[in-house]
Amino acid sequence: MQNFTFKNPTEIIFGMQTIFQIGEEAAKFGNKVLLVYGQGSIKKNGVYDNVVKSLKGAKLEITEFFGVKSNPVLSHLEEGIILAKREKINVIVAVGGGSVLDESKAIAAGAKTDGDVWDFFVNQTSIQDALPLLTVLTLSATGSEMNPTAVITNEGKQQKFEISSPFLFPKVSILDPTTMYSVPKSYTAYSAVDTISHVIEGYFTGDDPYTPIQDRIVEGIVQSIMENTEICLDNPEDYQGRAVMMWAATLALNGLPVSGIGEFSFPNHMIEHSLSAIYDIAHGAGLSIVIPGWMTYAASGAPVKFAQFAERIFGIVSNSPERTAEMGIEALKSWFRNIGSPVSLSEVNISENDIEMIAENATMLAQKWQLHEYTKDVITEVLKLCC
Amino acid sequence: MQNFTFKNPTEIIFGMQTIFQIGEEAAKFGNKVLLVYGQGSIKKNGVYDNVVKSLKGAKLEITEFFGVKSNPVLSHLEEGIILAKREKINVIVAVGGGSVLDESKAIAAGAKTDGDVWDFFVNQTSIQDALPLLTVLTLSATGSEMNPTAVITNEGKQQKFEISSPFLFPKVSILDPTTMYSVPKSYTAYSAVDTISHVIEGYFTGDDPYTPIQDRIVEGIVQSIMENTEICLDNPEDYQGRAVMMWAATLALNGLPVSGIGEFSFPNHMIEHSLSAIYDIAHGAGLSIVIPGWMTYAASGAPVKFAQFAERIFGIVSNSPERTAEMGIEALKSWFRNIGSPVSLSEVNISENDIEMIAENATMLAQKWQLHEYTKDVITEVLKLCC
Repeated sequence: MQNFTFKNPTEIIFGMQTIFQIGEEAAKFGNKVLLVYGQGSIKKNGVYDNVVKSLKGAKLEITEFFGVKSNPVLSHLEEGIILAKREKINVIVAVGGGSVLDESKAIAAGAKTDGDVWDFFVNQTSIQDALPLLTVLTLSATGSEMNPTAVITNEGKQQKFEISSPFLFPKVSILDPTTMYSVPKSYTAYSAVDTISHVIEGYFTGDDPYTPIQDRIVEGIVQSIMENTEICLDNPEDYQGRAVMMWAATLALNGLPVSGIGEFSFPNHMIEHSLSAIYDIAHGAGLSIVIPGWMTYAASGAPVKFAQFAERIFGIVSNSPERTAEMGIEALKSWFRNIGSPVSLSEVNISENDIEMIAENATMLAQKWQLHEYTKDVITEVLKLCC
Repeated sequence: MQNFTFKNPTEIIFGMQTIFQIGEEAAKFGNKVLLVYGQGSIKKNGVYDNVVKSLKGAKLEITEFFGVKSNPVLSHLEEGIILAKREKINVIVAVGGGSVLDESKAIAAGAKTDGDVWDFFVNQTSIQDALPLLTVLTLSATGSEMNPTAVITNEGKQQKFEISSPFLFPKVSILDPTTMYSVPKSYTAYSAVDTISHVIEGYFTGDDPYTPIQDRIVEGIVQSIMENTEICLDNPEDYQGRAVMMWAATLALNGLPVSGIGEFSFPNHMIEHSLSAIYDIAHGAGLSIVIPGWMTYAASGAPVKFAQFAERIFGIVSNSPERTAEMGIEALKSWFRNIGSPVSLSEVNISENDIEMIAENATMLAQKWQLHEYTKDVITEVLKLCC
């Protein structure tokens, strides 16, 4: 195990009917609420009404700010900051999925600076303060509800950058699994893939070979997600299934599974970013294409951890770690296929001829993400394994 | 999964040489330090010197308060509160194991009240404030370094009571596994038993039948502890082994494994409390006697979870859950025996004739802990299974 620091002060309020606690909780931090949400789907499933009722019940003054896009953009973020300052907002309530939460974090930081919020993203100017943020999660996968990170796209400069600061931990996040009942099967599957990807990146790339607790937490999350994805696909209103998936997604990216594993990286996310940047493809769908290919590439010559994964997740035994690893990768790929997430470029109509262009794009990301071992040749090799 | 709230704001600084960060961290909270420790063993292994060096390096003024006993007592706690008030202490640094940490938490609360500190324990008067507390852990098992709870004995009234308050979370806990190198084999084994007991109480008594993530976190902690106890017994200075045991013990009682499992109880701890109250026996040693007996009692008629434990921890398969559960309990008992922790009353020279007296004592605890199903007959039955 490597040295580490872990601190995560976000309060999680989890369970059925917990949404009605948002007013009382927000009132602990302020009385002038900026209520941030997306394209209005929360008005269809009753979440909006319940949140507003709870906020009004706590006598809070509400200013609404909506229209957050998936992959939230700087121009909209800047509108939110102007509004927050003008209305003298003292607490933010974000209602939605990862995009709404991320943009709300950036508004929280931006509202406390006289400077340009994009400086926080480009120059990593350290954030010194932020408005208190509470969240009501309606689509779990990104883990933003229990971490201090946000990703925003500067559409003018075509830059998708990240900020991270201890000031950006949500004060309180409310996770009511019933808000997930209306998530369609496709996105239920993609969110499962995304959660699995969040834990296996560290599991397979961490530079410390001896991390038994962290490994088992990851394996436990993967197994729980796999069992419960199938339950939710069979019955989208299975409360227990949705609850397990929601809590697993939060734990996957709250910092605990990677504490002590040393340096690690996100090569699958890097290559997938290029896919979804170029093609109209959901993040989870892109990941289920990239992961088996990347695993095959990475297991070659270093199969031990991949064999452990195969043994513990799928109960695979064989006469060599190479073969066990290979069978595990095949089993994961089959599972992705079974839940309806694509496992090859051709399935999403990406031609093998495009690989060079995708690799070109991903190589630039590799520079930015400092994954220098991911040369264009390496990325091309991985992408060929995704065909 | 049941509804739950989880919040744990303690910062963990984990790893080799981290002890030297205590000065810098404490200086963020105050300049007049109460340095609390036990019977002076930290002066033998260099920990005291390193802590003092770091505190002085950060220009902090140190008042020492030592002599904390295992099972810390009210009279000593009250001396600490008087000292903290007189010296206008504004930050507490606790260096030691669970007892030192627990007494330091109570000093932190007591120093901020004009009333009687014992009122916090008896009447659950709600604690409204506490001095900031930082800890340097030198014996892991109780989990006090990352939870808001403390147990103190009022020796005059023969009461051993608990306080718990969000104000009592340590601000920062420093966990350097090398401080555990000098822990003798017996206490290495007892601390393993104790950690296992902390997670299996909730695992076996939680009232929600569907908690797959929590189950796997618990199973991961148990497996990691088992593997690494053996490593540490073979070589007390195995850094990785000590590191895994230290982090596992912290995670075992930081609230995460029980989040979502619903109501649960501590019957093994209850019965063991009576053993160690009457006889001179280490807490972990008492637990390894009680656990197999209690498991046998509890598995009778409800073997499913015990069979899951047997399958996942020991890889046991049989033709019935009853038999699998039974074989799992036997395997755990053998493991306790192998690491040198006692597994029967007779091994620690407690006669079967004493069972009635022990059961009498434990029955009073059962009242206090509101474990009303634990009548004297039930406790007697469990104790007979511990012979």
